[in-house]
Amino acid sequence: MARSKQTECIVALGLIVLLIASFPAMAKQRKLGESLEVRKIKAVLDHQVEAWNHHDLEGFMSGYWNSESLTFYSGGITAAGWKTTLDRYRSRYQGAGNEMGQLQFTDLQVEMLSPTSAFVRGHWHLKMSASEPGGLFTLVFRKIEGQWKIVHDHTSTS
Amino acid sequence: MARSKQTECIVALGLIVLLIASFPAMAKQRKLGESLEVRKIKAVLDHQVEAWNHHDLEGFMSGYWNSESLTFYSGGITAAGWKTTLDRYRSRYQGAGNEMGQLQFTDLQVEMLSPTSAFVRGHWHLKMSASEPGGLFTLVFRKIEGQWKIVHDHTSTS
Repeated sequence: MARSKQTECIVALGLIVLLIASFPAMAKQRKLGESLEVRKIKAVLDHQVEAWNHHDLEGFMSGYWNSESLTFYSGGITAAGWKTTLDRYRSRYQGAGNEMGQLQFTDLQVEMLSPTSAFVRGHWHLKMSASEPGGLFTLVFRKIEGQWKIVHDHTSTS
Repeated sequence: MARSKQTECIVALGLIVLLIASFPAMAKQRKLGESLEVRKIKAVLDHQVEAWNHHDLEGFMSGYWNSESLTFYSGGITAAGWKTTLDRYRSRYQGAGNEMGQLQFTDLQVEMLSPTSAFVRGHWHLKMSASEPGGLFTLVFRKIEGQWKIVHDHTSTS
């Protein structure tokens, strides 16, 4: 009987130790959960760069919210809506005499604002045959139907 | 006794009716709660404009997060930190031969991202004695210690 009580005691102590030990693991898991969202957002941007560099504007545009409420600010001009933004890119980079060049994003800072919203700061560089424009961008991301989408883009040129 | 039962029944029905009637009021209150935050954010911007137009740069800067983590993007240049941003404004608008002019914000769109974060799109106009510069801005706001502060500003000139 004494032995049985001792066993019970050991089991109970073991459970308490396990519970305490699991706290850092739980915290780590939550941390990993957060950075998973950051990684997902970075994956959207990686996909955009890859699509751009394959002259795939529709692929590039898949990172944007396909909505009339999407807004795009660039060089003092505002574009509203996914289709308008695509048309703007088409006329600017795929029109006669234009080229898309090689796009690169650097110094990316992804900051979560809530589990379903974030903003991204970064630099953009475009390597063209005769010039290398570049500048800064601020993107507002929202998780819409489980997918991270840019809902607002403010891009400026240096 | 029959009368008492009837009274009880009327009271119970009354309570149910009151409960149902209170739902829209509760929803409205929640809606008012949301727009209260939007109004608070707009008040920060109103205060900034007023301070600017009284040549009070510190008052204008009180809308920004007083932190080294504040970021300010403008004309391809990034400023990091509250003090750096203030110094940038000082040299640009209060230096020799410079003027602050009359500031105006228009077309403000405040969009809540969570109860403690939002972003604002808008146009800025500066009426100087010899010129009228203007452009677009995107602000990321966070509610820090109960107060709405700009944590990131991306301003571009038309």
